[in-house]
Amino acid sequence: MVERVDIKENILGKNEAFAIENKRLFEEKKLFVMNVMSSPGAGKTTFLTETIKRLKDRYKIGVIEGDVASKIDAERISRTGIPVVQVNTGGACHLDASMVRKAAEHLPLDELEIVIIENVGNLVCPAEWSLGENLKVVLLSVPEGDDKPIKYPLMFSSADVLLITKIDLLPHFNFNFKEIEKVVRGLNPSVKIIKMSSVTLEGYDEWIDELERRIKGVSCRE
Amino acid sequence: MVERVDIKENILGKNEAFAIENKRLFEEKKLFVMNVMSSPGAGKTTFLTETIKRLKDRYKIGVIEGDVASKIDAERISRTGIPVVQVNTGGACHLDASMVRKAAEHLPLDELEIVIIENVGNLVCPAEWSLGENLKVVLLSVPEGDDKPIKYPLMFSSADVLLITKIDLLPHFNFNFKEIEKVVRGLNPSVKIIKMSSVTLEGYDEWIDELERRIKGVSCRE
Repeated sequence: MVERVDIKENILGKNEAFAIENKRLFEEKKLFVMNVMSSPGAGKTTFLTETIKRLKDRYKIGVIEGDVASKIDAERISRTGIPVVQVNTGGACHLDASMVRKAAEHLPLDELEIVIIENVGNLVCPAEWSLGENLKVVLLSVPEGDDKPIKYPLMFSSADVLLITKIDLLPHFNFNFKEIEKVVRGLNPSVKIIKMSSVTLEGYDEWIDELERRIKGVSCRE
Repeated sequence: MVERVDIKENILGKNEAFAIENKRLFEEKKLFVMNVMSSPGAGKTTFLTETIKRLKDRYKIGVIEGDVASKIDAERISRTGIPVVQVNTGGACHLDASMVRKAAEHLPLDELEIVIIENVGNLVCPAEWSLGENLKVVLLSVPEGDDKPIKYPLMFSSADVLLITKIDLLPHFNFNFKEIEKVVRGLNPSVKIIKMSSVTLEGYDEWIDELERRIKGVSCRE
């Protein structure tokens, strides 16, 4: 067991060095970079399609799509008319900073203002791998259940924004918002929590306001 | 990248050796061992609670619960009155064969006939880690979407039984059974696919029949 932990720490240490390099590159290019994470099927691609639709007339956006296999999400996103690069991890349960760097080289970085990274659908691995991003967004969908922050604490403790998605399905589930909010705030007092639905579009105005506030915040610090 | 692959193969190789030892132990104790895998929130614990309820008067069952953190699933299962051991992986996205071995030592193996392992909620990692089990059961819930087998092929290609869960929610989703069946059969021609709901209990009779057939099949070969 000890050996395995050492190997993992070594790999994570190398990733941190790559992530710092990414951060420098993104700052140099004046890019706002957002890492979007969730379980499989929480609604990341649908959420990103709507987010891009609302932002693309005001910002120049590029997307890095991470999946174990296939390019179906990249194809869905590319229908919004913005540049997309697909990364297939070939088995790995997360993107790492060096994969993101290689993918970013295929985007027209000098022309972009926002890069969105859709991570591999997974509530465990992506939480450990810094990509050099400005914002970590985590989606949790109502059908997954309100116990997920207790069971996967690292993902929820490292999120900047938590989006509770598919809230149009609330009548069909026993999902306790007060309880989940209490648990998440215990792990992560500063997290912003927004309830959303890609069917009714509830929550999107609040999300876009929050995102623009964060984008401007990064610019202000420069 | 080459270095990382080598490390991973080395760790997986050690796991295979532990899995073979587990298999020997389980055969010696005449145990049927089932590894249950899915995304977070696909309904594994609810499914297992109902399965145990239907089997516990005929078989002596023990459960190994795998989670990154918390013991809430173990507490839910223990309300069925059967012995449960919780394994917290402390960050790892899957159980491995040595974790299962250590957990099994805390169960009364000589008195049991079935051991159910509820793996960490994850569609990527658990697929790679053999535990020495007799049966791999994968759950995919309707709200996750019908594109998951294309995006996470290893999990679906290694399943013995695929349970499509939460089918009571079908009216709210665009979920194509024919398409998913075609994709899964392309990856895995011999997989048994059953549609289920823990609300209406549709599919449970078929699942219990299938499971008992498998349990008896293992006994016959001895």
